[in-house]
Amino acid sequence: MLTLQAIVERLNAQGFSAQLLGNADAEIRRVASLTGAGEGDITFLAHARFKKDLGSTHAAAVIVTAKDADAVPTNAVVVENPHVAYAHVASWLYSENDFVPGIHPAATVDPTSTVHAQAWIDANCTIEAGVVIAAGCYIGPGCVIGKNTTLGENTRLVANVTLCHDTKIGCRNLLHPGVVIGADGFGLANNKGEWLKVPQVGRVILGNDIEVGANSTIDRGAIGDTVVEDGVKLDNLIQIGHNVHIGAHTAIAACTAVAGSAIIGRHCAIGGCVGIVGHLEIADNVTITGMSHVSQAISKPGVYSSGTPLEENATWHRNFIRLKQLDDMARRLKKLERRLAASEHLDETKK
Amino acid sequence: MLTLQAIVERLNAQGFSAQLLGNADAEIRRVASLTGAGEGDITFLAHARFKKDLGSTHAAAVIVTAKDADAVPTNAVVVENPHVAYAHVASWLYSENDFVPGIHPAATVDPTSTVHAQAWIDANCTIEAGVVIAAGCYIGPGCVIGKNTTLGENTRLVANVTLCHDTKIGCRNLLHPGVVIGADGFGLANNKGEWLKVPQVGRVILGNDIEVGANSTIDRGAIGDTVVEDGVKLDNLIQIGHNVHIGAHTAIAACTAVAGSAIIGRHCAIGGCVGIVGHLEIADNVTITGMSHVSQAISKPGVYSSGTPLEENATWHRNFIRLKQLDDMARRLKKLERRLAASEHLDETKK
Amino acid sequence: MLTLQAIVERLNAQGFSAQLLGNADAEIRRVASLTGAGEGDITFLAHARFKKDLGSTHAAAVIVTAKDADAVPTNAVVVENPHVAYAHVASWLYSENDFVPGIHPAATVDPTSTVHAQAWIDANCTIEAGVVIAAGCYIGPGCVIGKNTTLGENTRLVANVTLCHDTKIGCRNLLHPGVVIGADGFGLANNKGEWLKVPQVGRVILGNDIEVGANSTIDRGAIGDTVVEDGVKLDNLIQIGHNVHIGAHTAIAACTAVAGSAIIGRHCAIGGCVGIVGHLEIADNVTITGMSHVSQAISKPGVYSSGTPLEENATWHRNFIRLKQLDDMARRLKKLERRLAASEHLDETKK
Repeated sequence: MLTLQAIVERLNAQGFSAQLLGNADAEIRRVASLTGAGEGDITFLAHARFKKDLGSTHAAAVIVTAKDADAVPTNAVVVENPHVAYAHVASWLYSENDFVPGIHPAATVDPTSTVHAQAWIDANCTIEAGVVIAAGCYIGPGCVIGKNTTLGENTRLVANVTLCHDTKIGCRNLLHPGVVIGADGFGLANNKGEWLKVPQVGRVILGNDIEVGANSTIDRGAIGDTVVEDGVKLDNLIQIGHNVHIGAHTAIAACTAVAGSAIIGRHCAIGGCVGIVGHLEIADNVTITGMSHVSQAISKPGVYSSGTPLEENATWHRNFIRLKQLDDMARRLKKLERRLAASEHLDETKK
Repeated sequence: MLTLQAIVERLNAQGFSAQLLGNADAEIRRVASLTGAGEGDITFLAHARFKKDLGSTHAAAVIVTAKDADAVPTNAVVVENPHVAYAHVASWLYSENDFVPGIHPAATVDPTSTVHAQAWIDANCTIEAGVVIAAGCYIGPGCVIGKNTTLGENTRLVANVTLCHDTKIGCRNLLHPGVVIGADGFGLANNKGEWLKVPQVGRVILGNDIEVGANSTIDRGAIGDTVVEDGVKLDNLIQIGHNVHIGAHTAIAACTAVAGSAIIGRHCAIGGCVGIVGHLEIADNVTITGMSHVSQAISKPGVYSSGTPLEENATWHRNFIRLKQLDDMARRLKKLERRLAASEHLDETKK
Repeated sequence: MLTLQAIVERLNAQGFSAQLLGNADAEIRRVASLTGAGEGDITFLAHARFKKDLGSTHAAAVIVTAKDADAVPTNAVVVENPHVAYAHVASWLYSENDFVPGIHPAATVDPTSTVHAQAWIDANCTIEAGVVIAAGCYIGPGCVIGKNTTLGENTRLVANVTLCHDTKIGCRNLLHPGVVIGADGFGLANNKGEWLKVPQVGRVILGNDIEVGANSTIDRGAIGDTVVEDGVKLDNLIQIGHNVHIGAHTAIAACTAVAGSAIIGRHCAIGGCVGIVGHLEIADNVTITGMSHVSQAISKPGVYSSGTPLEENATWHRNFIRLKQLDDMARRLKKLERRLAASEHLDETKK
């Protein structure tokens, strides 16, 4: 529980210039949506489409911008960016780091590894030789950490995460269940029609404040390293190929695949189900919409897209067939323009 | 082993009006395909394309519709829907619930959890505090069940499944290996170019009779819950974002991604590799073909598609380039129509 | 450590006709990239785009073709296919099979299973009844092997791999973390609008020398088996549906999905994020580029593609809208051609 007064003070300690309108002693216990909120709940208005629900909310308090403050029927916390303020408040109300440090008796920890006394290794984990786990780390049940891998402070592996050997993970990372980091990249040499495995001897290096979603995979480098910079956020079921480099504060939505040796800039926003070809470079501040296919480098910031519209199947099928005739149509169009110009010229000369 | 007589009786107990043609004492031990079947095998004819194999089958019995009964060279079970009847028969011949209840000594079960005496917790599982597991549940090796999660009767987690805290799973669910339910949704607030995690405090609620394929992921809600209704069937490597709602008896094929807060109706059939954008609604009884991109709401039942045809690479490349000129082509076409009309009008007036 | 002399001798034992230019006693300890290499490192030049870095490399030796040998500023190993030679050399320098055989005390192994004395079962593994594990196998931490599954010699499961019951795995396979083999296929019968599960009673059969990437899934057959032939290489997060058959020495990149009963030929190369519809056949030696949608059989070798170009969002949107008008545009184009021909004919007759 936090009083509204305490919330506003904490926000201001974070530099928010938050303003409290209403009862400073109101007790806040949970977060909720505008429509679902009741006594003890704080909520927020981040998008105009939800404004219709503001007047009837039963929340104890609403975080809003100054322009919406008058419409709040209860206590208000006024800030410039309600979504960011909400994220802070929720993190205070729902702290996850409620573990007691130590090593669970059902964990298997190699004696040559170094586990900080303020870290927690849960049941059925396997920690291999030479691993280093810093203070504040939480290694959830069923995780496997391969030889010589290192974890920075306050990193959290939720459960059933696999980190392969020689991986370097920074501080305050959050790796969700089923994540695999450091598996071999897809390196093959074609030997007279048969594929020969090319040993993958590079590593994966993750910076600080990174989140990796459930069942996502980040492959180790073929020779050099695969690198993910600070603050990168990856959703679920994402594939990051060997020797990819992802710039700081880039976010990637679910089911996107990045092929080997692609270089992605900083502050990019990449949608879900996107395919990014290998050995190309994407500039900083690039946005790519969902299901796009990135097959060439992108050198300028901006929003990029590919893909086709959803249609009723019968209509789609008619248009779909025409796609195979598109080059032919373009040539016929060009020819028509020439013929019509000739015909018009003829008319002209006949005048 | 079941006699054909017993099979027909059980089908009729399920309301099938099944009719037996041939030897009621024939012993059925296995299922098989029309071409692979031999002594003791039962098979079925569900699709006209397999009818060519009916005459030469060595099966002990074939499940068919009345119109194909005459063509069966062996014992026949005549029903209206052979595929559905086959599914029942196969489930009787291959019962999976052959476990002895109890807790494996190599499982780790928190003393505050409640495991029914008729449930089975296999080796290397981790069951956290406050979990409730009902009668008939099978928790396969390596599963992790987070705090306060509850499982209804006869739910089966095959192996290495992760259920995060406070998840609610109904009865008779089947969760395949690597499934992750209740990991954090992809909730981020942009704070001056850096992504701040928005705590995900909702839950995942699964109804009854749901199947989730290997390595699929269903994220917990940001504030409210992610909900999957009764009878939903999800294939492998599917991503269900936070606060998605999937209506009863909808089936989704592999590698499809559903972004946050999408609402999918009942009785939908969604193909593989489909991408569904967040915050939109899809009506009941909608079919979406594979690899489609759903970027707008669908308000009417029907079949919907997007995507382009596969072509030989050289042809594809020629048409591909024209796609960038499509708007230009459309404008030039319009202009040509106008010019030709003018020219025809001129001809007309000259007559 | 290997001397350059030893490396060349080993290559020639593999049939390479390798030629050594320079110091045969040079000691090689690691592999590195052309630009990252230093003392003790061997590297290779496989692609013309890296030739610019050859002259300034600090490597102890470079593997090159005869035509690039003169440009090497250090020791050279001259072969026909440097990438393949490099793969061999790297595998000698970085041998992974450094385990001591035995069963970890924290593994759970059913007494009815057969584990060869020269195999290794690591911590927190679960080996069920009737499993057979041959010599040289490495079963990494957290793996689950279901009833009656068999593994050929020198197969390696890295960690947290799940093999379901009755799966047959050949020799020298490499299965990365999170792989699931033998989960149920997506078999459903529609019973008056509700989906009834069809028991999946077939198996998965993997040949020899197969690699399966992290978190990929291969489903068991519905009735017959799902088959993957020798030398197939699968990247991460790939879905292989029930009863699929993949021919020998085919490679498939990440996030591709193959639907049930598809038959893929030998020596195919399939890009990432491809969707292959079920019940179709793809010939040998077919290449499919990334993100293609294969909805029809491919009967001839060649390169095939589908998909649309990436564009700036505004341009894309203009072209995107026209896609819905494409059939209409094609009809109008045809009509214009007819009208113009008529008009030209008129001009002709008037001359």
